[in-house]
Amino acid sequence: MYHPLNEESAPEYLRKCPVTSEIFCGHDDLKAVDLAEGNINLIFRVYSESDPIGRSVLIKQALPHSRRYPSFKIPLDRARIEHEVLELEARYCPEQVPKVYFHDPEMHLNVMEDLNRHLVMRYGLMKQTRYPNFGRHIGTFLARTLFHTSDLYLSPFEKKATVPRFINPVLCKICEDLVFTEPYIDHPNNRWTRLLDPQVAQLRANDELRSEVLLLKFEFMCNAQALIHGDLHTGSIMVNEQETKVIDPEFAYFGPMGYDIGAVLGNLALSYASQEYHAQDPRVRAEYREWLRDAIREVWTIFETEFGRLWETEANDQWPSLTLRSKYIKKLLQDTAGFGACKMMRRILGLAHVPDLDCIEDEHVRAIAESLALNIAQSWLMNRHTYNSVEDLVSAIGTSRPSYPF
Amino acid sequence: MYHPLNEESAPEYLRKCPVTSEIFCGHDDLKAVDLAEGNINLIFRVYSESDPIGRSVLIKQALPHSRRYPSFKIPLDRARIEHEVLELEARYCPEQVPKVYFHDPEMHLNVMEDLNRHLVMRYGLMKQTRYPNFGRHIGTFLARTLFHTSDLYLSPFEKKATVPRFINPVLCKICEDLVFTEPYIDHPNNRWTRLLDPQVAQLRANDELRSEVLLLKFEFMCNAQALIHGDLHTGSIMVNEQETKVIDPEFAYFGPMGYDIGAVLGNLALSYASQEYHAQDPRVRAEYREWLRDAIREVWTIFETEFGRLWETEANDQWPSLTLRSKYIKKLLQDTAGFGACKMMRRILGLAHVPDLDCIEDEHVRAIAESLALNIAQSWLMNRHTYNSVEDLVSAIGTSRPSYPF
Repeated sequence: MYHPLNEESAPEYLRKCPVTSEIFCGHDDLKAVDLAEGNINLIFRVYSESDPIGRSVLIKQALPHSRRYPSFKIPLDRARIEHEVLELEARYCPEQVPKVYFHDPEMHLNVMEDLNRHLVMRYGLMKQTRYPNFGRHIGTFLARTLFHTSDLYLSPFEKKATVPRFINPVLCKICEDLVFTEPYIDHPNNRWTRLLDPQVAQLRANDELRSEVLLLKFEFMCNAQALIHGDLHTGSIMVNEQETKVIDPEFAYFGPMGYDIGAVLGNLALSYASQEYHAQDPRVRAEYREWLRDAIREVWTIFETEFGRLWETEANDQWPSLTLRSKYIKKLLQDTAGFGACKMMRRILGLAHVPDLDCIEDEHVRAIAESLALNIAQSWLMNRHTYNSVEDLVSAIGTSRPSYPF
Repeated sequence: MYHPLNEESAPEYLRKCPVTSEIFCGHDDLKAVDLAEGNINLIFRVYSESDPIGRSVLIKQALPHSRRYPSFKIPLDRARIEHEVLELEARYCPEQVPKVYFHDPEMHLNVMEDLNRHLVMRYGLMKQTRYPNFGRHIGTFLARTLFHTSDLYLSPFEKKATVPRFINPVLCKICEDLVFTEPYIDHPNNRWTRLLDPQVAQLRANDELRSEVLLLKFEFMCNAQALIHGDLHTGSIMVNEQETKVIDPEFAYFGPMGYDIGAVLGNLALSYASQEYHAQDPRVRAEYREWLRDAIREVWTIFETEFGRLWETEANDQWPSLTLRSKYIKKLLQDTAGFGACKMMRRILGLAHVPDLDCIEDEHVRAIAESLALNIAQSWLMNRHTYNSVEDLVSAIGTSRPSYPF
């Protein structure tokens, strides 16, 4: 019967778990520590005291509500969704996802690979770390997972049988509200740097901008283009020098591909803006910003190349036209810019901010960085219909300036 | 247990049916006639011999395959879908749908209102009949059914709970193949007027056109915008001087609104082209064509007005922007032109033709009419991205000419 684990019961649970013998030795003394890291789940690291790094797993268990925001009720079923998505992703991109050792449908938990040699990418970016394989890994991950769950690859029957397994109303509703609605209205969830009041007021009064956000909300709600991760910011990416792993797909559902690609590129752009604070030395700042712009270029370019290769070699016979492919990719680029922009703006105007910007204590510096991020986003959102290549996104970053101080 | 009815067993079945006493008198002698009209179902008219017009019902029963094309296997479940769609439509537009007296989930049949005072609209158009209420009725029907099953009206949870009830893979696949794929490739299902060979070859070689058709196919497969009828041509509309009824929604699923609106407008445009034959007198032809163009105007204008009124009065609070509404409607108009064009072309190049054109025995006259229809469709499809008002669709009809004789 379902019951939430704790530091005492987690090793107990694991000892009875069928996969434990493959990971731990019979005589291992297991210890659990509550990572208290997740916004919405219980996460325990369970490790052998004799080899804490080498023999270690994560137990990720769903609660009937969000851990950080208990008023958000979220179905326990998300543990199944996470498990099934990770399985699907592993089929096409095994190196970019954590292994799932065991799924317990009754306890709504997954026993997973412990990525204890990896860092959450966001924190690496805050220290100007360069990840040489990141662009290639994430571009490939996006291309393979999105292509293979779209109508380009799945038969119409397989697609229509898969869609209902990932109808995810509660987690979608959180995004619908937090990404597309609340940041643009008066809502008690919102918070922002007060120095930005004039810019925020202007942005909210802009009905043209609001209408573009809401058109993207329709896309988010209606366009079942592929099984998307649904929360692919740089906090869902674990990295080290060699490896890149995408975690936490519980927001997954059949939605627009550009929402995932935009999440990655938008969070790189947020990091770009936040270097106003994190990289104090002007030369270091300029060089690292160049690396971030290169990373945006590379993610897109690798994505586009791999997606095109898959289309050529693995697409079903419904989509033979070359003109179609170039129009399809162009529309994806424009969606990416639009969704990327929404993902940036909500992190500055809405409920959940990113540490990159939120940790800046000096209000003036934070206002400069956030104002810059808002202007990049606004440019992506409003000009995206004219975008033809990733250079358009990259150069919008280069030419944007903060409006603050006004 | 399920078994297909016949003329003998249908009255028998009805006598035991709980609703029969409401429609028939106890002493009525019931007779059934197999209408053999449907492409895909069994349809019996069961009537009282003492009052065949006044006391009469239809029994529409699903077969495990298409009646006319037995190689098409189609799930029996379509009778449930038809029943549930008619119920939903009746909630918002009761005057435009036939009553369902009884749904039998085991026999996969519906006992329905017999529209024996109505004519299939297509045949009325072939005789230059004017239906003064048609534009208002169908425009209103489209606005109300599409609005109330979209995210504009439904809550996100209600929408996501409703979508899987209408996932309709087999009937969707028929449209995916017959509307968007086969007409543009070599396929044994296709047939066309041989005199049009050069135009058909040119059209198929046009990769730009092909790519636009396939972009619409993606929309058809992915865009769960509203619960659409899915087969709303003039053969699914029953009319008389006063009334307009929309029948046969077994192709319904959550898809793009423009597919329904385009089906209506495209079939009016097919009738326009077919008047080349049906209206021999030049003045009669010109005047009736003017009526058809007015009907297109009116369907759209009434739709747009009613849809706007509903948005203002009944939309949920997610969509407040006025700019959004005008962009949304413009996109609908462009989708309508695109899907309307596809629905026209497939009736000339693909498997299932329309009687309006197919009944023309003189090959030259048929080629002229069909060539004109293809050119109207091509103009709608390729120029739709510039369309701002229904006048753009109407004037494309006026300025199109047949390419035949070449």
